[in-house]
Amino acid sequence: MAELADLACVEMLVGWDQLVMMPADGAPARANQLGSLARVIHERATAAQIGEWLAELDGAVLDELDRDIVRLARRDWERARRVPDELAAELASASADGQERWRLARANDDFQAFAPALARNVELARARGQCLAGEGESRYEALLSDYDFGLRTQELRRVFGALAEELPPLIAQARQRSPAHALQVPVNAQQAAVAGTLRRLGVEQASWRVDVSAHPFTAWIGSMDTRVTTRYSDGNVEALLSSLHEYGHALYERQVDPALARTNLAGGTSMSMHESQSKLWENHVARNPAFAELLAAELEAGGYSIAPAELHRALVGVAPSAIRVSADPLTYPLHIVLRFELELALIDGQLAVADLPAAWREGMMRLLGVEVASDALGCMQDVHWGAGSFGYFPSYALGCLIAAQLWEAMQAELGPRDEDLRTGEVAPIQRWLAEHVHRHGRRLDTLELLEQATGRGLEIEPFLRYVAPLAEG
Amino acid sequence: MAELADLACVEMLVGWDQLVMMPADGAPARANQLGSLARVIHERATAAQIGEWLAELDGAVLDELDRDIVRLARRDWERARRVPDELAAELASASADGQERWRLARANDDFQAFAPALARNVELARARGQCLAGEGESRYEALLSDYDFGLRTQELRRVFGALAEELPPLIAQARQRSPAHALQVPVNAQQAAVAGTLRRLGVEQASWRVDVSAHPFTAWIGSMDTRVTTRYSDGNVEALLSSLHEYGHALYERQVDPALARTNLAGGTSMSMHESQSKLWENHVARNPAFAELLAAELEAGGYSIAPAELHRALVGVAPSAIRVSADPLTYPLHIVLRFELELALIDGQLAVADLPAAWREGMMRLLGVEVASDALGCMQDVHWGAGSFGYFPSYALGCLIAAQLWEAMQAELGPRDEDLRTGEVAPIQRWLAEHVHRHGRRLDTLELLEQATGRGLEIEPFLRYVAPLAEG
Repeated sequence: MAELADLACVEMLVGWDQLVMMPADGAPARANQLGSLARVIHERATAAQIGEWLAELDGAVLDELDRDIVRLARRDWERARRVPDELAAELASASADGQERWRLARANDDFQAFAPALARNVELARARGQCLAGEGESRYEALLSDYDFGLRTQELRRVFGALAEELPPLIAQARQRSPAHALQVPVNAQQAAVAGTLRRLGVEQASWRVDVSAHPFTAWIGSMDTRVTTRYSDGNVEALLSSLHEYGHALYERQVDPALARTNLAGGTSMSMHESQSKLWENHVARNPAFAELLAAELEAGGYSIAPAELHRALVGVAPSAIRVSADPLTYPLHIVLRFELELALIDGQLAVADLPAAWREGMMRLLGVEVASDALGCMQDVHWGAGSFGYFPSYALGCLIAAQLWEAMQAELGPRDEDLRTGEVAPIQRWLAEHVHRHGRRLDTLELLEQATGRGLEIEPFLRYVAPLAEG
Repeated sequence: MAELADLACVEMLVGWDQLVMMPADGAPARANQLGSLARVIHERATAAQIGEWLAELDGAVLDELDRDIVRLARRDWERARRVPDELAAELASASADGQERWRLARANDDFQAFAPALARNVELARARGQCLAGEGESRYEALLSDYDFGLRTQELRRVFGALAEELPPLIAQARQRSPAHALQVPVNAQQAAVAGTLRRLGVEQASWRVDVSAHPFTAWIGSMDTRVTTRYSDGNVEALLSSLHEYGHALYERQVDPALARTNLAGGTSMSMHESQSKLWENHVARNPAFAELLAAELEAGGYSIAPAELHRALVGVAPSAIRVSADPLTYPLHIVLRFELELALIDGQLAVADLPAAWREGMMRLLGVEVASDALGCMQDVHWGAGSFGYFPSYALGCLIAAQLWEAMQAELGPRDEDLRTGEVAPIQRWLAEHVHRHGRRLDTLELLEQATGRGLEIEPFLRYVAPLAEG
């Protein structure tokens, strides 16, 4: 387990380097390097020897930590072994091919050119789901478990159905308001504000890096080597939000109990819980009116003056649009609801790939009141399906819900944190998250962890309470 | 072989990151990551399966390239298999421990504190040499073959003995001269000159990185992702020399025949041949009076004015001193001659570790006329022996000799290259090196390659002709 943990760090580092440091012409060799590394890791993670060790441990008396290590080792090993090597190879090749075809088809707005590759990925994902599905589990649920172990389709139907009911009226309400002024913040002021803000949150040179990449992401190369990236563009303040978002991912990994280091438990427990941590810092910290005072002060130090209230208005503006990645906090989950409906139907065999564009347009109109101008800006806007990822999208919306639920639970226990956000003294927030979420690593699955942290199952009400003021403006 | 080649690139990248990008607190986890990666690579490089493949290929009809791939695969596999796993583990632990003890002992100038760790490394290296030694091969020769396959002690005695005869009179001559003025070049001018000079040699963003690290080194992550590092300190021009030195290493790896990519032949053939490439660019290009004109122009562009002749004088100043890494081109090989004599005696059992300091002092006086002020500045100045590396040092001096021999052979064929160096149009030099040295990768061992490239065996005369003018001043 220690070796696999080390190799996973190496893989993440090599991926980070590819996106942040690698000279462009290094790409073909890098693909080979990552391929060989992934193959070695896969071989060792699925080795028959692990099965022998697990058999030896059957019925052994173990302390609680070792019990969890063995439990997760068994789960991971059994899942990995259920997919035949030939299917795994076919999935990898279809994913690489699908991404390339997606890239070209999107550039040409040509869904027909993409459809065969997508159909192949759907078929292979169905086959994979079939291999993985346990007793009474659907293929889609088996795929979901890659990202969120144990999550049920029924649970997703319940919460996403409720969001599809509750959010559209709020969006209609928001449409009545006049939009916030777009800000024109120079890049150097954004850079200074990002650096200053992250510094206040504990991002220091000895164990962090902050770099620029085409798409913001976070890499953790061990708990004392955390690397967030951001990007800057003239005239918007996305960097302020995205750097807090990445900080949330990073803090989760850093605050896992050190006793779990180099075990299979040392890491975030699921995609949705991870996304909840990024969304907590993006939605509930960066978009908090109290924190806008701090952000405005940091922008001021970078040479750009703005009133905190005006900055806050810009950070929480609501405007339904066709594109998920630039959606505001209120409309964002509905982009996911649509993807969930469609990918479930694709995997269940109720939607043909050829019918996807029409279904997409219908859904966008129904959920968001948005007319889709093209497939490139419609069902081809995301790479996920072309890369063979089905069951990933729900975590984005679950993250929003869980973040709101955790934020309320924390304030119920500690009292309002406005003063912390105003001053940047966020240690109490960090500590609460460490205690209730981060330290557990993978020892608890998503819903169990949420239940322990908040005393309740998954709910949409805290999220609705969070977005209501955004609708009101 | 392709997988091993990929993993070697990954290992080099992880090492590069550690020295150039990693936050300091990431070090303990990184040691684990590198350890796990090295173990995986070792396991796969020594796998019984490779032996089976090699057996299947016995007597197979292969083309020339495949024949070389199989020949080297057999050699590498057999050598790696000859060292028992327990000894390999002990070697690794003694190396790690020895480096740590060396660091402390050197800081305290306390040879007694270092001696036991050194003695353990000597004993283990002897044991390893015993395992590796082939028919009629000494233990030391077996260790030498880690770095320079097939090199013989007798050959080293011949050339190093000749250097010990020929260089001291030249050094005595150089001592008559007044030393060159030390330069005071601001760091930003050095940076501009290094960047500008490397750009003229073909170092462009799409496939190179140039970074700063504590000790200059080069990493090749595939032939189109080359990373050199340098360091800057106020008041000397070491960066100009060391960046050309690293460029030489880099160019060797980049110009290996692309047909060898992802085979076991894709790389420099030996440490001495690699060092010859770095020394060629350091000694014969950077220290060439014609190239001083280019360097002076680049410094001028960086805001620092100096006459080319004065710059050249500073780059070729001779001053015998106790420290190898800062030695000038004339005295440098004698530092190596001393280390060769002593490590050979240690491995042959003719010198006890306890007697090393005295033997060092005697040798420094005999070869260089230098009084050794302390063991820290004497036999503890280098990490190599404490890390268990015996047989590595000779390559540093052989590199100087081979560089001079290649440089003469190239000019004999192409005519003087002064005009190339004056203008930075070095394509003819790059092409000659590619054709005669680089493209072969590991297909030819050092002496065979040298013989093909120059028509002669290893000689010291070209080097003597190179240093004679430095002695005259």
